[in-house]
Amino acid sequence: MIEVPADEPPRRRRRGPEHNVVQAPQPTLTQPRYSFRPVELISRDELESIHQASLAVLKEIGIDFLHAEAKAILKDAGADVDPSTDRVRLDPSLVESLIGKAPQQFMLHSRNPERKLVIGGDHTAFCTVGSAPNSYDRDGGRRPGNHRDYQNFIRLGQSFDQIHLFGGYPVEPVDIHASVRHLDALFDMLTLSDKPIHAYSLGRERNLDAIEMVKIARGIDDETLEREPSLFTIINSSSPLRLDTPMLEGVIRMARRNQVVVLTPFTLAGAMAPVTIAGALTQQHAEALAGLMLAQTVRPGSPFVYGGFTSNVDMKSGAPAFGTPEYMKSAMIGGQLARRLGLPYRSSNTNAANSLDAQAAYESVFSLWGAIMGGANLLMHGAGWMEGGLQASFEKMALDADLLGMVAAFLRPVATEESELALEAIRDVGPGGHFFGTAHTQSRYRNAFFAPMISDWRNYESWRDAGSPSALDAANKLYKDRLAHFVAPPMQTERREALEAFVARRKAEGGAPTDF
Amino acid sequence: MIEVPADEPPRRRRRGPEHNVVQAPQPTLTQPRYSFRPVELISRDELESIHQASLAVLKEIGIDFLHAEAKAILKDAGADVDPSTDRVRLDPSLVESLIGKAPQQFMLHSRNPERKLVIGGDHTAFCTVGSAPNSYDRDGGRRPGNHRDYQNFIRLGQSFDQIHLFGGYPVEPVDIHASVRHLDALFDMLTLSDKPIHAYSLGRERNLDAIEMVKIARGIDDETLEREPSLFTIINSSSPLRLDTPMLEGVIRMARRNQVVVLTPFTLAGAMAPVTIAGALTQQHAEALAGLMLAQTVRPGSPFVYGGFTSNVDMKSGAPAFGTPEYMKSAMIGGQLARRLGLPYRSSNTNAANSLDAQAAYESVFSLWGAIMGGANLLMHGAGWMEGGLQASFEKMALDADLLGMVAAFLRPVATEESELALEAIRDVGPGGHFFGTAHTQSRYRNAFFAPMISDWRNYESWRDAGSPSALDAANKLYKDRLAHFVAPPMQTERREALEAFVARRKAEGGAPTDF
Repeated sequence: MIEVPADEPPRRRRRGPEHNVVQAPQPTLTQPRYSFRPVELISRDELESIHQASLAVLKEIGIDFLHAEAKAILKDAGADVDPSTDRVRLDPSLVESLIGKAPQQFMLHSRNPERKLVIGGDHTAFCTVGSAPNSYDRDGGRRPGNHRDYQNFIRLGQSFDQIHLFGGYPVEPVDIHASVRHLDALFDMLTLSDKPIHAYSLGRERNLDAIEMVKIARGIDDETLEREPSLFTIINSSSPLRLDTPMLEGVIRMARRNQVVVLTPFTLAGAMAPVTIAGALTQQHAEALAGLMLAQTVRPGSPFVYGGFTSNVDMKSGAPAFGTPEYMKSAMIGGQLARRLGLPYRSSNTNAANSLDAQAAYESVFSLWGAIMGGANLLMHGAGWMEGGLQASFEKMALDADLLGMVAAFLRPVATEESELALEAIRDVGPGGHFFGTAHTQSRYRNAFFAPMISDWRNYESWRDAGSPSALDAANKLYKDRLAHFVAPPMQTERREALEAFVARRKAEGGAPTDF
Repeated sequence: MIEVPADEPPRRRRRGPEHNVVQAPQPTLTQPRYSFRPVELISRDELESIHQASLAVLKEIGIDFLHAEAKAILKDAGADVDPSTDRVRLDPSLVESLIGKAPQQFMLHSRNPERKLVIGGDHTAFCTVGSAPNSYDRDGGRRPGNHRDYQNFIRLGQSFDQIHLFGGYPVEPVDIHASVRHLDALFDMLTLSDKPIHAYSLGRERNLDAIEMVKIARGIDDETLEREPSLFTIINSSSPLRLDTPMLEGVIRMARRNQVVVLTPFTLAGAMAPVTIAGALTQQHAEALAGLMLAQTVRPGSPFVYGGFTSNVDMKSGAPAFGTPEYMKSAMIGGQLARRLGLPYRSSNTNAANSLDAQAAYESVFSLWGAIMGGANLLMHGAGWMEGGLQASFEKMALDADLLGMVAAFLRPVATEESELALEAIRDVGPGGHFFGTAHTQSRYRNAFFAPMISDWRNYESWRDAGSPSALDAANKLYKDRLAHFVAPPMQTERREALEAFVARRKAEGGAPTDF
């Protein structure tokens, strides 16, 4: 097999910058790990009261499963399934019997073995933004998602080592027909990037196509795929207390092949969930447990991630709000609930700002604060999310990459061995001296501190004389530089050709149904 | 005694907005408290290795005390004082004997009894920016600090309930002669505000004037003052390992009267401290212990706060950087070190940005993350700090007030009693329903969530049609609204007149020496 650089899909082949220039040097970031215990925002007893209330919801109220096969599977497992409705009630003993079967951590594989990730345990991993309907950059303004922007977001996500995997389509390429969109989008993701990927659960055919494409890209057989989880899917419940048809189809298809299910209720307090944080989390937990129940019944031990996405609405307008104090608390308690079940935890980097101003930044960092101190193992929407998810921003992706780099640097343990305590250096310098020139400083200086890509630390006069650039200016420059210097990761020719052939065949067959 | 609204000092009396309008309604915020344990970023053993290294610094290297009386006090206490230099060496047993004497928490009083604060324990309190040489607002641009801006910052700090006390002069009023600046500045602070205050340690006369003025403003005698700490002073060491004359004078004067000493080494890793975090913290801890030693020798049990201000320099320019990953880690470990000594902990809300853009916001929130998860009991520079402390910004103060409000809301415990778990509401709504209209929601809706002052949660189209306002626009509007509607808090006429008389007398005497 000959390794050649991947380029664009044949239908759009052109000579672009990725063919002509050398990839810019990047910092090598290993996957961040936690060296401290996550925050326990509420006590063990308080946590248990939420868990028990969720079990009561599942037993007494039940959940609607809009999927005949899912209901049959759960009925066989001992659930109380109402034959006249979609209502499924689950006895606490049945639910508890499945807790602990899913792994606390597992490996998520990629076509590049060096990009594989540990999901769970004390590891964390950061995704791109996913599923935004609109894209934005300052030069082009806001526009509906499209294939060109989609490809550029994939390139940008690939180029930042601070971003570990793709959490869906960064922006929806709505100019590709829905029947074949997943084929083009997955082809781009698997050729322009070599990081782990997500596949949408939007009908059985799309799940199966994604599984086949990732097998081709990795060059693996069915047995290896099932031994090595190679893609993940986000399953959102239709809160309150409902799991719809394509999502349940996704749980079944993915769990059956031992691929990763990330069950994330979108429990917006005051709208689709109770107005209280404890109430919204009770519902979140009940919905997550219902998904866990199905996935672990389909295949006990299949990889499953507990997703938390509880936020609140704006009291004035009813609009969803993000990065709020309520969001932070929910993110942290969500982590406690996930650990109660022995599951990896997913949270998100969110904000509701319309432009990349101070609000976008503070809501994002408050979100990160909640997610990271909550012990998130998988951070969705890590880079590029704006407008409550309605906008993927090129500048925000670049700025977020810097924020994620800061978080990763924060997570690196503080060394306290004797040389780090620096007694000798303090002795050498003595009272009133300066540490710039000491050997202790000189030998460590280059890598002692995090070096930001965006932050401008010049003094006021130098900064003003340089034209008073804002963080938005720096992010605009950074993302363009990255795209201008992008080189797609290498891919074996035969795998690429096999992927092309698969896409061509499935397109000829008409793609996937659009009546999901 | 008749309560009358305070107005401006007589020398500047004019009819201003504070005389004509009703004060705008404000949310009532009680002092925030921690309901969770601070993060332990390093282990107990690692913490002890820093503590022991600091004791070794004090014993083997020693600290320069540039103050004869301080040296004499320490010599009497058993310290090894070199008669030919300023070097003081402290035996670990001597240092350890004074640990635990200062209170873990105490009350900081104010002229308005309702504004008094608990410093320490599980309480936290947020200060304004302090000591900036320049002020800024978007309309007037950046300018040297002046009396007019100073007064407006005091008014603004008073107007935000999210801000609990003044951490020094928000901006330095350099247009007042240095000999009498403290008299005018303290007069303004004690009349335009009724929150607790800080006094600079810039020579004995200034400390004594501040003590007398706060006694007059509170209407208390010496005995009450010593029973009720009524002002605090920041003592910065001249790192590395040096405490200078006015600062040591401040420790002695303030501790002797049982007023609050906040000892804060400014240990910039790679410049005035070792390049490693553990080394910089070793030095910070040694310097703080030296100050503690003096204060607790002068008056055992006097209120003392452990200040942490370890950050790092920019690797490229040597400029100080703030809100970095290194800053976050140092802030959290600083809290561990303070708790090791049983002391309240001071941290700061910092950033190095030159304008109120995304960088200003993310560096600030990263700082807050470090401070709050580190368990800070006193947050200096909480509102208004820009440019690494070189600029006090009106817009930043307004924006920070919102950030501090978010932090306070985050700190409010999550209720988990049965009604909060909302089982009944979940039952009433059922699968597929909506919570907007339920009684559970309606009865809680108004106060369920934090309501921001700055954040704009409108959808993109509404926001765009409103002129695409940024957070800076909102902050500019907010601070002007607050100043336009400012009403000074009431003050007894006789106290005000006594303050005026004191200032007049001390000015007639020539104020304080300027050769400090």
